[in-house]
Amino acid sequence: MSNAAEAPIGIFDSGIGGMTVFGAIQALLPHERLIYLGDTARLPYGTKSAETVTRYATQTTRALMRYDVKMVVIACNTATALALPVLKAALDPVPVIGVVEPGARAAVEASPDQRIGVLATEATVRGGAYARAIHALRPQAQVSQIACPLFVALAEEGWTQGPVPELAAERYVSTLFQAGRPDTLVLGCTHFPLLAPAIAKAAGPDIRLVDSAQTTALEVKLALGRLGLLRDGAPASPQFLVTDAPERFVRVGGQFLGQSIASSSVELIDLSPAA
Amino acid sequence: MSNAAEAPIGIFDSGIGGMTVFGAIQALLPHERLIYLGDTARLPYGTKSAETVTRYATQTTRALMRYDVKMVVIACNTATALALPVLKAALDPVPVIGVVEPGARAAVEASPDQRIGVLATEATVRGGAYARAIHALRPQAQVSQIACPLFVALAEEGWTQGPVPELAAERYVSTLFQAGRPDTLVLGCTHFPLLAPAIAKAAGPDIRLVDSAQTTALEVKLALGRLGLLRDGAPASPQFLVTDAPERFVRVGGQFLGQSIASSSVELIDLSPAA
Repeated sequence: MSNAAEAPIGIFDSGIGGMTVFGAIQALLPHERLIYLGDTARLPYGTKSAETVTRYATQTTRALMRYDVKMVVIACNTATALALPVLKAALDPVPVIGVVEPGARAAVEASPDQRIGVLATEATVRGGAYARAIHALRPQAQVSQIACPLFVALAEEGWTQGPVPELAAERYVSTLFQAGRPDTLVLGCTHFPLLAPAIAKAAGPDIRLVDSAQTTALEVKLALGRLGLLRDGAPASPQFLVTDAPERFVRVGGQFLGQSIASSSVELIDLSPAA
Repeated sequence: MSNAAEAPIGIFDSGIGGMTVFGAIQALLPHERLIYLGDTARLPYGTKSAETVTRYATQTTRALMRYDVKMVVIACNTATALALPVLKAALDPVPVIGVVEPGARAAVEASPDQRIGVLATEATVRGGAYARAIHALRPQAQVSQIACPLFVALAEEGWTQGPVPELAAERYVSTLFQAGRPDTLVLGCTHFPLLAPAIAKAAGPDIRLVDSAQTTALEVKLALGRLGLLRDGAPASPQFLVTDAPERFVRVGGQFLGQSIASSSVELIDLSPAA
Protein backbone atom coordinates (compact mmCIF):
# COMPACT_ATOMS: atom_id res chain seq x y z
CA MET A 1 0.00 0.00 0.00
CA SER A 2 1.41 3.37 -1.04
CA ASN A 3 1.41 6.38 1.23
CA ALA A 4 -1.04 8.05 -1.17
CA ALA A 5 -3.57 5.35 -0.27
CA GLU A 6 -3.77 6.82 3.24
CA ALA A 7 -5.45 9.94 1.80
CA PRO A 8 -9.20 10.26 2.24
CA ILE A 9 -11.91 9.90 -0.40
CA GLY A 10 -13.88 13.13 -0.83
CA ILE A 11 -17.63 12.74 -1.32
CA PHE A 12 -19.51 15.78 -2.53
CA ASP A 13 -23.24 16.46 -2.59
CA SER A 14 -25.48 19.49 -2.91
CA GLY A 15 -26.67 18.75 0.60
CA ILE A 16 -27.85 15.63 2.35
CA GLY A 17 -29.08 13.16 -0.29
CA GLY A 18 -25.55 12.00 -1.09
CA MET A 19 -25.51 10.29 2.28
CA THR A 20 -27.14 7.28 0.58
CA VAL A 21 -24.00 7.03 -1.60
CA PHE A 22 -21.75 7.72 1.40
CA GLY A 23 -23.40 4.82 3.24
CA ALA A 24 -22.83 2.42 0.32
CA ILE A 25 -19.14 3.42 0.05
CA GLN A 26 -18.65 3.09 3.80
CA ALA A 27 -20.20 -0.38 3.77
CA LEU A 28 -18.16 -1.62 0.80
CA LEU A 29 -14.88 0.06 1.79
CA PRO A 30 -14.77 0.12 5.61
CA HIS A 31 -11.01 0.77 5.68
CA GLU A 32 -11.22 4.02 3.75
CA ARG A 33 -11.12 7.45 5.33
CA LEU A 34 -14.16 9.41 4.11
CA ILE A 35 -14.79 13.15 4.02
CA TYR A 36 -18.29 14.18 3.02
CA LEU A 37 -19.01 17.77 1.97
CA GLY A 38 -22.63 18.93 1.62
CA ASP A 39 -23.37 22.38 0.18
CA THR A 40 -26.31 22.87 2.52
CA ALA A 41 -26.19 26.68 2.22
CA ARG A 42 -27.26 26.47 -1.42
CA LEU A 43 -29.26 23.23 -1.65
CA PRO A 44 -31.17 22.05 -3.58
CA TYR A 45 -29.37 22.03 -6.92
CA GLY A 46 -32.20 20.18 -8.70
CA THR A 47 -34.31 23.27 -9.44
CA LYS A 48 -31.38 25.42 -10.63
CA SER A 49 -29.83 26.13 -14.03
CA ALA A 50 -26.86 24.25 -15.49
CA GLU A 51 -24.67 27.35 -15.17
CA THR A 52 -25.48 27.87 -11.49
CA VAL A 53 -25.12 24.18 -10.62
CA THR A 54 -21.74 24.08 -12.39
CA ARG A 55 -20.48 27.19 -10.56
CA TYR A 56 -21.62 25.95 -7.15
CA ALA A 57 -20.30 22.41 -7.67
CA THR A 58 -16.92 23.68 -8.84
CA GLN A 59 -16.51 25.98 -5.82
CA THR A 60 -17.58 23.27 -3.40
CA THR A 61 -15.49 20.40 -4.78
CA ARG A 62 -12.42 22.68 -4.85
CA ALA A 63 -12.88 23.09 -1.09
CA LEU A 64 -12.56 19.30 -0.78
CA MET A 65 -9.11 19.48 -2.41
CA ARG A 66 -7.78 21.24 0.69
CA TYR A 67 -8.12 17.89 2.47
CA ASP A 68 -5.68 16.19 0.06
CA VAL A 69 -8.27 13.71 -1.15
CA LYS A 70 -7.15 10.87 -3.43
CA MET A 71 -10.49 10.75 -5.27
CA VAL A 72 -13.68 12.80 -5.46
CA VAL A 73 -17.10 11.17 -5.74
CA ILE A 74 -19.88 13.44 -7.05
CA ALA A 75 -22.67 11.89 -4.98
CA CYS A 76 -25.31 14.15 -6.52
CA ASN A 77 -27.15 13.23 -9.69
CA THR A 78 -27.84 16.84 -10.66
CA ALA A 79 -24.21 17.94 -10.29
CA THR A 80 -23.03 14.82 -12.14
CA ALA A 81 -25.59 15.25 -14.91
CA LEU A 82 -24.82 18.91 -15.50
CA ALA A 83 -21.20 19.42 -14.50
CA LEU A 84 -19.14 16.19 -14.52
CA PRO A 85 -16.80 17.16 -17.42
CA VAL A 86 -16.15 20.59 -15.89
CA LEU A 87 -15.51 19.06 -12.46
CA LYS A 88 -13.08 16.50 -13.91
CA ALA A 89 -11.13 19.30 -15.57
CA ALA A 90 -11.22 21.49 -12.45
CA LEU A 91 -10.00 18.74 -10.09
CA ASP A 92 -7.43 17.13 -12.44
CA PRO A 93 -5.28 15.11 -11.70
CA VAL A 94 -7.48 13.80 -8.87
CA PRO A 95 -9.86 11.18 -10.32
CA VAL A 96 -13.56 12.08 -10.23
CA ILE A 97 -16.44 9.58 -10.24
CA GLY A 98 -20.07 10.60 -10.76
CA VAL A 99 -23.29 8.71 -10.06
CA VAL A 100 -25.08 8.87 -13.42
CA GLU A 101 -22.97 6.36 -15.38
CA PRO A 102 -23.07 3.80 -12.50
CA GLY A 103 -26.83 4.35 -12.25
CA ALA A 104 -27.26 3.82 -15.98
CA ARG A 105 -25.16 0.64 -15.80
CA ALA A 106 -27.27 -0.68 -12.93
CA ALA A 107 -30.39 -0.03 -15.01
CA VAL A 108 -29.27 -1.76 -18.20
CA GLU A 109 -28.02 -4.73 -16.18
CA ALA A 110 -31.34 -5.07 -14.36
CA SER A 111 -33.63 -4.44 -17.31
CA PRO A 112 -34.79 -7.55 -19.20
CA ASP A 113 -36.24 -5.70 -22.20
CA GLN A 114 -34.31 -2.41 -22.05
CA ARG A 115 -37.39 -0.33 -21.31
CA ILE A 116 -36.08 2.04 -18.65
CA GLY A 117 -37.83 4.87 -16.80
CA VAL A 118 -35.81 7.57 -15.05
CA LEU A 119 -37.11 9.42 -11.96
CA ALA A 120 -34.93 12.47 -11.24
CA THR A 121 -34.86 16.20 -10.43
CA GLU A 122 -36.01 18.89 -12.86
CA ALA A 123 -32.41 19.81 -13.74
CA THR A 124 -31.31 16.20 -14.32
CA VAL A 125 -34.32 15.48 -16.52
CA ARG A 126 -33.79 18.68 -18.51
CA GLY A 127 -30.12 17.85 -19.09
CA GLY A 128 -30.91 14.36 -20.40
CA ALA A 129 -27.71 12.82 -18.99
CA TYR A 130 -29.34 9.54 -17.97
CA ALA A 131 -30.77 8.92 -21.43
CA ARG A 132 -27.34 9.61 -22.96
CA ALA A 133 -25.58 7.32 -20.46
CA ILE A 134 -28.11 4.51 -21.00
CA HIS A 135 -27.93 4.84 -24.79
CA ALA A 136 -24.13 4.79 -24.65
CA LEU A 137 -24.42 1.32 -23.07
CA ARG A 138 -27.52 0.06 -24.96
CA PRO A 139 -28.29 2.11 -28.07
CA GLN A 140 -31.64 0.35 -28.56
CA ALA A 141 -32.95 1.02 -25.05
CA GLN A 142 -36.26 2.85 -24.70
CA VAL A 143 -35.84 5.59 -22.11
CA SER A 144 -38.60 7.72 -20.58
CA GLN A 145 -38.13 10.18 -17.73
CA ILE A 146 -40.03 12.39 -15.29
CA ALA A 147 -39.04 15.07 -12.80
CA CYS A 148 -40.22 14.26 -9.25
CA PRO A 149 -39.28 17.34 -7.19
CA LEU A 150 -41.68 16.51 -4.38
CA PHE A 151 -39.70 13.38 -3.53
CA VAL A 152 -36.80 15.59 -2.40
CA ALA A 153 -39.00 17.42 0.09
CA LEU A 154 -40.64 14.20 1.30
CA ALA A 155 -37.27 12.52 1.92
CA GLU A 156 -35.91 15.57 3.77
CA GLU A 157 -39.08 15.79 5.87
CA GLY A 158 -38.76 12.10 6.76
CA TRP A 159 -42.18 11.35 5.26
CA THR A 160 -41.07 8.19 3.52
CA GLN A 161 -43.97 5.92 4.43
CA GLY A 162 -47.74 6.24 4.44
CA PRO A 163 -50.34 7.84 2.22
CA VAL A 164 -48.60 11.12 1.31
CA PRO A 165 -45.49 9.59 -0.32
CA GLU A 166 -47.58 6.74 -1.79
CA LEU A 167 -50.03 9.12 -3.47
CA ALA A 168 -47.19 11.33 -4.71
CA ALA A 169 -45.42 8.27 -6.14
CA GLU A 170 -48.64 7.09 -7.79
CA ARG A 171 -49.08 10.47 -9.45
CA TYR A 172 -45.54 10.63 -10.82
CA VAL A 173 -45.37 6.97 -11.83
CA SER A 174 -48.76 6.98 -13.59
CA THR A 175 -47.75 10.12 -15.52
CA LEU A 176 -44.50 8.46 -16.57
CA PHE A 177 -46.30 5.26 -17.59
CA GLN A 178 -48.57 7.17 -20.00
CA ALA A 179 -45.60 7.11 -22.40
CA GLY A 180 -45.37 3.31 -22.14
CA ARG A 181 -44.63 0.93 -19.32
CA PRO A 182 -40.93 0.46 -18.48
CA ASP A 183 -39.62 -2.76 -16.91
CA THR A 184 -37.03 -0.94 -14.77
CA LEU A 185 -37.02 2.38 -12.92
CA VAL A 186 -33.81 4.23 -12.07
CA LEU A 187 -33.95 6.33 -8.91
CA GLY A 188 -31.94 9.14 -10.48
CA CYS A 189 -31.62 11.35 -7.41
CA THR A 190 -29.85 10.39 -4.21
CA HIS A 191 -32.93 11.34 -2.17
CA PHE A 192 -35.16 8.82 -3.89
CA PRO A 193 -33.90 5.51 -2.38
CA LEU A 194 -35.59 6.59 0.87
CA LEU A 195 -38.91 6.47 -0.99
CA ALA A 196 -38.22 3.15 -2.71
CA PRO A 197 -41.05 1.27 -0.92
CA ALA A 198 -43.65 3.89 -1.95
CA ILE A 199 -42.29 4.00 -5.53
CA ALA A 200 -42.27 0.18 -5.75
CA LYS A 201 -45.87 0.02 -4.55
CA ALA A 202 -46.93 2.59 -7.15
CA ALA A 203 -44.99 0.89 -9.96
CA GLY A 204 -46.22 -2.64 -9.30
CA PRO A 205 -44.43 -5.89 -8.45
CA ASP A 206 -43.11 -6.64 -11.95
CA ILE A 207 -40.95 -3.51 -12.18
CA ARG A 208 -37.34 -3.43 -11.01
CA LEU A 209 -36.01 -0.47 -9.03
CA VAL A 210 -32.34 0.43 -9.17
CA ASP A 211 -30.27 3.28 -7.80
CA SER A 212 -26.67 4.32 -8.23
CA ALA A 213 -25.44 4.02 -4.63
CA GLN A 214 -24.25 0.39 -4.82
CA THR A 215 -22.82 0.59 -8.34
CA THR A 216 -21.05 3.87 -7.57
CA ALA A 217 -19.45 2.31 -4.49
CA LEU A 218 -18.32 -0.61 -6.63
CA GLU A 219 -16.86 1.74 -9.23
CA VAL A 220 -14.97 3.58 -6.49
CA LYS A 221 -13.52 0.29 -5.28
CA LEU A 222 -12.49 -0.83 -8.78
CA ALA A 223 -10.95 2.54 -9.64
CA LEU A 224 -8.95 2.69 -6.39
CA GLY A 225 -7.78 -0.86 -7.00
CA ARG A 226 -6.60 0.00 -10.52
CA LEU A 227 -4.72 3.02 -9.16
CA GLY A 228 -3.16 1.06 -6.27
CA LEU A 229 -4.88 3.42 -3.82
CA LEU A 230 -6.99 1.06 -1.70
CA ARG A 231 -6.34 1.66 2.00
CA ASP A 232 -6.13 -1.26 4.40
CA GLY A 233 -5.42 0.52 7.67
CA ALA A 234 -7.71 0.52 10.67
CA PRO A 235 -11.17 1.98 10.04
CA ALA A 236 -11.29 5.73 10.65
CA SER A 237 -14.25 7.86 11.71
CA PRO A 238 -15.79 9.82 8.84
CA GLN A 239 -15.70 13.59 8.75
CA PHE A 240 -18.64 15.72 7.56
CA LEU A 241 -18.36 19.27 6.26
CA VAL A 242 -21.40 21.45 5.58
CA THR A 243 -21.79 25.01 4.37
CA ASP A 244 -24.79 25.70 6.62
CA ALA A 245 -26.95 24.40 9.48
CA PRO A 246 -24.89 21.51 10.93
CA GLU A 247 -27.62 20.57 13.43
CA ARG A 248 -30.08 20.03 10.57
CA PHE A 249 -27.47 17.86 8.84
CA VAL A 250 -27.13 15.70 11.95
CA ARG A 251 -30.89 15.19 12.09
CA VAL A 252 -31.79 14.74 8.40
CA GLY A 253 -28.47 13.11 7.40
CA GLY A 254 -29.03 10.46 10.05
CA GLN A 255 -32.37 9.59 8.36
CA PHE A 256 -30.57 9.12 5.06
CA LEU A 257 -27.74 7.09 6.52
CA GLY A 258 -30.02 4.97 8.69
CA GLN A 259 -27.76 5.54 11.69
CA SER A 260 -27.09 8.50 13.96
CA ILE A 261 -24.38 11.03 13.15
CA ALA A 262 -22.24 12.45 15.95
CA SER A 263 -22.52 16.24 16.18
CA SER A 264 -18.80 16.41 16.84
CA SER A 265 -18.08 14.89 13.39
CA VAL A 266 -19.89 17.70 11.53
CA GLU A 267 -18.01 20.92 10.82
CA LEU A 268 -19.39 24.17 9.36
CA ILE A 269 -17.15 25.57 6.61
CA ASP A 270 -17.36 28.88 4.77
CA LEU A 271 -17.11 28.87 0.98
CA SER A 272 -17.79 32.57 0.49
CA PRO A 273 -14.99 34.26 -1.47
CA ALA A 274 -14.19 36.54 1.48
CA ALA A 275 -13.36 33.52 3.65
CA MET B 1 -46.80 64.28 -6.09
CA SER B 2 -43.06 64.62 -5.59
CA ASN B 3 -40.54 63.41 -8.12
CA ALA B 4 -39.41 60.81 -5.59
CA ALA B 5 -42.86 59.24 -5.85
CA GLU B 6 -42.01 58.21 -9.41
CA ALA B 7 -39.40 55.78 -8.08
CA PRO B 8 -40.33 52.09 -8.03
CA ILE B 9 -41.14 49.92 -5.02
CA GLY B 10 -38.65 47.07 -4.66
CA ILE B 11 -40.12 43.73 -3.62
CA PHE B 12 -37.66 41.08 -2.47
CA ASP B 13 -38.17 37.36 -1.96
CA SER B 14 -35.97 34.30 -1.65
CA GLY B 15 -37.53 33.08 -4.88
CA ILE B 16 -41.07 32.81 -6.12
CA GLY B 17 -43.39 32.71 -3.10
CA GLY B 18 -43.28 36.48 -2.67
CA MET B 19 -45.36 36.75 -5.82
CA THR B 20 -48.45 36.35 -3.61
CA VAL B 21 -47.42 39.61 -1.88
CA PHE B 22 -46.49 41.20 -5.22
CA GLY B 23 -49.99 40.41 -6.51
CA ALA B 24 -51.66 42.02 -3.47
CA ILE B 25 -49.53 45.18 -3.81
CA GLN B 26 -50.21 45.39 -7.54
CA ALA B 27 -53.95 45.06 -6.95
CA LEU B 28 -54.06 47.67 -4.18
CA LEU B 29 -51.60 50.12 -5.78
CA PRO B 30 -52.04 49.82 -9.55
CA HIS B 31 -50.28 53.14 -10.21
CA GLU B 32 -47.02 52.09 -8.61
CA ARG B 33 -43.98 50.89 -10.53
CA LEU B 34 -42.93 47.52 -9.10
CA ILE B 35 -39.58 45.73 -9.31
CA TYR B 36 -39.56 42.19 -7.94
CA LEU B 37 -36.26 40.46 -7.17
CA GLY B 38 -36.24 36.71 -6.46
CA ASP B 39 -33.02 35.05 -5.26
CA THR B 40 -33.81 31.88 -7.22
CA ALA B 41 -30.15 30.78 -7.33
CA ARG B 42 -30.16 30.21 -3.57
CA LEU B 43 -33.78 29.42 -2.73
CA PRO B 44 -35.23 28.19 -0.47
CA TYR B 45 -34.23 30.20 2.59
CA GLY B 46 -36.59 28.33 4.91
CA THR B 47 -34.22 25.42 5.62
CA LYS B 48 -31.14 27.59 6.16
CA SER B 49 -29.52 29.16 9.23
CA ALA B 50 -30.15 32.70 10.45
CA GLU B 51 -26.59 33.72 9.50
CA THR B 52 -26.89 32.44 5.93
CA VAL B 53 -30.37 33.89 5.40
CA THR B 54 -29.16 37.26 6.70
CA ARG B 55 -26.12 37.25 4.41
CA TYR B 56 -28.11 36.26 1.33
CA ALA B 57 -30.95 38.71 2.02
CA THR B 58 -28.53 41.59 2.59
CA GLN B 59 -26.68 40.92 -0.68
CA THR B 60 -29.91 40.57 -2.63
CA THR B 61 -31.75 43.59 -1.28
CA ARG B 62 -28.66 45.74 -1.86
CA ALA B 63 -28.93 44.81 -5.54
CA LEU B 64 -32.44 46.31 -5.50
CA MET B 65 -30.97 49.65 -4.39
CA ARG B 66 -29.34 50.04 -7.81
CA TYR B 67 -32.85 50.62 -9.17
CA ASP B 68 -33.35 53.71 -6.95
CA VAL B 69 -36.32 52.20 -5.15
CA LYS B 70 -38.33 54.40 -2.79
CA MET B 71 -39.22 51.48 -0.49
CA VAL B 72 -38.25 47.82 -0.09
CA VAL B 73 -40.80 45.16 0.83
CA ILE B 74 -39.35 41.95 2.27
CA ALA B 75 -41.96 39.62 0.77
CA CYS B 76 -40.44 36.56 2.43
CA ASN B 77 -41.43 35.43 5.90
CA THR B 78 -38.11 33.70 6.58
CA ALA B 79 -36.01 36.73 5.61
CA THR B 80 -38.31 39.03 7.58
CA ALA B 81 -38.32 36.76 10.62
CA LEU B 82 -34.55 36.36 10.73
CA ALA B 83 -33.10 39.50 9.18
CA LEU B 84 -35.49 42.49 9.25
CA PRO B 85 -33.46 44.67 11.69
CA VAL B 86 -30.24 44.02 9.73
CA LEU B 87 -31.96 44.77 6.42
CA LYS B 88 -33.42 48.03 7.78
CA ALA B 89 -29.94 49.11 8.85
CA ALA B 90 -28.35 48.02 5.57
CA LEU B 91 -30.89 49.84 3.37
CA ASP B 92 -31.25 52.98 5.48
CA PRO B 93 -32.63 55.62 4.66
CA VAL B 94 -34.93 53.66 2.31
CA PRO B 95 -37.93 52.42 4.33
CA VAL B 96 -38.23 48.64 4.67
CA ILE B 97 -41.47 46.74 5.33
CA GLY B 98 -41.56 43.05 6.24
CA VAL B 99 -44.42 40.56 6.19
CA VAL B 100 -44.35 39.16 9.73
CA GLU B 101 -45.79 42.14 11.62
CA PRO B 102 -48.64 42.59 9.07
CA GLY B 103 -49.32 38.85 9.27
CA ALA B 104 -49.41 38.98 13.06
CA ARG B 105 -51.78 41.95 12.90
CA ALA B 106 -54.08 40.11 10.51
CA ALA B 107 -54.13 37.18 12.93
CA VAL B 108 -54.98 39.12 16.09
CA GLU B 109 -57.67 41.06 14.23
CA ALA B 110 -59.26 37.86 12.91
CA SER B 111 -58.97 35.80 16.09
CA PRO B 112 -61.99 35.90 18.41
CA ASP B 113 -60.29 34.23 21.38
CA GLN B 114 -56.61 34.97 20.63
CA ARG B 115 -55.72 31.33 20.12
CA ILE B 116 -53.45 31.53 17.08
CA GLY B 117 -51.57 28.79 15.23
CA VAL B 118 -48.66 29.65 12.95
CA LEU B 119 -47.76 27.52 9.90
CA ALA B 120 -44.32 28.50 8.57
CA THR B 121 -40.90 27.30 7.39
CA GLU B 122 -38.40 25.57 9.67
CA ALA B 123 -36.29 28.74 9.94
CA THR B 124 -39.25 31.00 10.72
CA VAL B 125 -40.56 28.63 13.39
CA ARG B 126 -37.10 28.30 14.94
CA GLY B 127 -36.65 32.07 15.08
CA GLY B 128 -40.00 32.60 16.85
CA ALA B 129 -40.67 35.96 15.17
CA TYR B 130 -44.41 35.37 14.72
CA ALA B 131 -44.93 34.56 18.39
CA ARG B 132 -43.02 37.72 19.34
CA ALA B 133 -44.99 39.88 16.89
CA ILE B 134 -48.33 38.46 18.05
CA HIS B 135 -47.44 38.89 21.73
CA ALA B 136 -46.33 42.47 21.08
CA LEU B 137 -49.90 43.16 19.90
CA ARG B 138 -51.78 40.83 22.32
CA PRO B 139 -49.64 39.76 25.28
CA GLN B 140 -52.28 37.24 26.40
CA ALA B 141 -52.55 35.44 23.05
CA GLN B 142 -51.91 31.68 22.99
CA VAL B 143 -49.55 30.95 20.10
CA SER B 144 -48.62 27.52 18.76
CA GLN B 145 -46.54 26.88 15.65
CA ILE B 146 -45.40 24.14 13.29
CA ALA B 147 -42.91 23.97 10.42
CA CYS B 148 -44.55 22.75 7.17
CA PRO B 149 -41.65 22.45 4.70
CA LEU B 150 -43.57 20.17 2.35
CA PHE B 151 -46.03 22.97 1.55
CA VAL B 152 -43.21 24.86 -0.19
CA ALA B 153 -42.51 21.95 -2.53
CA LEU B 154 -46.22 21.33 -3.15
CA ALA B 155 -46.85 24.98 -4.08
CA GLU B 156 -43.83 25.08 -6.39
CA GLU B 157 -44.89 21.81 -8.03
CA GLY B 158 -48.39 23.21 -8.58
CA TRP B 159 -49.93 20.39 -6.53
CA THR B 160 -52.33 22.65 -4.66
CA GLN B 161 -55.47 20.55 -4.92
CA GLY B 162 -56.35 16.90 -4.45
CA PRO B 163 -55.35 14.17 -2.04
CA VAL B 164 -51.59 14.83 -1.73
CA PRO B 165 -51.84 18.41 -0.41
CA GLU B 166 -54.94 17.53 1.62
CA LEU B 167 -53.23 14.62 3.38
CA ALA B 168 -50.10 16.69 3.97
CA ALA B 169 -52.23 19.50 5.43
CA GLU B 170 -54.10 17.02 7.64
CA ARG B 171 -50.83 15.67 8.99
CA TYR B 172 -49.38 19.08 9.83
CA VAL B 173 -52.63 20.52 11.19
CA SER B 174 -53.41 17.51 13.38
CA THR B 175 -49.89 17.63 14.83
CA LEU B 176 -50.30 21.34 15.57
CA PHE B 177 -53.71 20.78 17.16
CA GLN B 178 -52.28 18.27 19.66
CA ALA B 179 -51.07 21.32 21.61
CA GLY B 180 -54.62 22.73 21.70
CA ARG B 181 -57.03 23.93 19.05
CA PRO B 182 -56.45 27.47 17.75
CA ASP B 183 -59.30 29.58 16.36
CA THR B 184 -57.09 31.22 13.70
CA LEU B 185 -54.21 29.97 11.55
CA VAL B 186 -51.61 32.32 10.08
CA LEU B 187 -50.11 31.18 6.77
CA GLY B 188 -46.63 32.33 7.76
CA CYS B 189 -44.89 31.60 4.45
CA THR B 190 -45.70 33.26 1.16
CA HIS B 191 -46.04 29.86 -0.52
CA PHE B 192 -48.85 28.73 1.74
CA PRO B 193 -51.79 30.83 0.43
CA LEU B 194 -51.77 28.57 -2.66
CA LEU B 195 -52.63 25.68 -0.35
CA ALA B 196 -55.29 27.58 1.59
CA PRO B 197 -58.19 25.34 0.42
CA ALA B 198 -56.39 22.15 1.53
CA ILE B 199 -55.36 23.75 4.84
CA ALA B 200 -58.91 25.03 5.45
CA LYS B 201 -60.33 21.57 4.78
CA ALA B 202 -57.89 20.01 7.24
CA ALA B 203 -58.49 22.67 9.90
CA GLY B 204 -62.27 22.57 9.76
CA PRO B 205 -64.91 25.21 9.03
CA ASP B 206 -64.71 27.05 12.36
CA ILE B 207 -61.07 28.09 11.95
CA ARG B 208 -60.05 31.37 10.29
CA LEU B 209 -57.12 31.45 7.87
CA VAL B 210 -55.12 34.64 7.40
CA ASP B 211 -52.01 35.54 5.47
CA SER B 212 -49.85 38.62 5.30
CA ALA B 213 -50.27 39.53 1.62
CA GLN B 214 -53.27 41.85 2.00
CA THR B 215 -52.15 43.48 5.25
CA THR B 216 -48.63 44.00 3.92
CA ALA B 217 -50.02 45.70 0.81
CA LEU B 218 -52.12 47.92 3.06
CA GLU B 219 -49.09 48.79 5.19
CA VAL B 220 -47.16 49.70 2.04
CA LYS B 221 -49.97 52.02 0.98
CA LEU B 222 -50.23 53.69 4.39
CA ALA B 223 -46.46 54.14 4.69
CA LEU B 224 -46.15 55.64 1.20
CA GLY B 225 -49.06 57.96 2.00
CA ARG B 226 -47.40 59.14 5.22
CA LEU B 227 -44.16 59.79 3.30
CA GLY B 228 -45.94 61.59 0.44
CA LEU B 229 -44.58 58.99 -1.96
CA LEU B 230 -47.75 57.56 -3.52
CA ARG B 231 -47.48 57.61 -7.31
CA ASP B 232 -50.51 58.53 -9.41
CA GLY B 233 -49.04 58.28 -12.92
CA ALA B 234 -50.20 55.83 -15.56
CA PRO B 235 -49.81 52.16 -14.60
CA ALA B 236 -46.40 50.78 -15.56
CA SER B 237 -45.46 47.20 -16.42
CA PRO B 238 -43.69 45.38 -13.58
CA GLN B 239 -40.12 44.25 -13.88
CA PHE B 240 -38.86 40.93 -12.53
CA LEU B 241 -35.25 40.17 -11.65
CA VAL B 242 -34.05 36.67 -10.77
CA THR B 243 -30.64 35.26 -9.88
CA ASP B 244 -31.25 31.98 -11.77
CA ALA B 245 -33.54 30.09 -14.15
CA PRO B 246 -35.83 32.83 -15.57
CA GLU B 247 -37.89 30.32 -17.56
CA ARG B 248 -38.78 28.46 -14.34
CA PHE B 249 -39.76 31.80 -12.78
CA VAL B 250 -42.13 32.51 -15.68
CA ARG B 251 -43.79 29.11 -15.24
CA VAL B 252 -43.97 28.78 -11.45
CA GLY B 253 -44.32 32.53 -10.78
CA GLY B 254 -47.37 32.59 -13.02
CA GLN B 255 -48.98 29.90 -10.81
CA PHE B 256 -48.40 32.06 -7.75
CA LEU B 257 -49.64 35.25 -9.38
CA GLY B 258 -52.64 33.58 -10.99
CA GLN B 259 -51.83 35.24 -14.32
CA SER B 260 -49.15 34.67 -16.93
CA ILE B 261 -45.82 36.48 -16.76
CA ALA B 262 -44.22 37.77 -19.97
CA SER B 263 -40.78 36.24 -20.53
CA SER B 264 -39.56 39.63 -21.72
CA SER B 265 -40.28 41.14 -18.26
CA VAL B 266 -37.93 38.71 -16.47
CA GLU B 267 -34.23 39.49 -16.35
CA LEU B 268 -31.40 37.31 -15.05
CA ILE B 269 -28.99 39.21 -12.79
CA ASP B 270 -25.68 38.13 -11.28
CA LEU B 271 -25.10 38.73 -7.57
CA SER B 272 -21.74 36.95 -7.39
CA PRO B 273 -19.02 39.21 -6.00
CA ALA B 274 -17.05 39.00 -9.26
CA ALA B 275 -19.95 40.55 -11.16
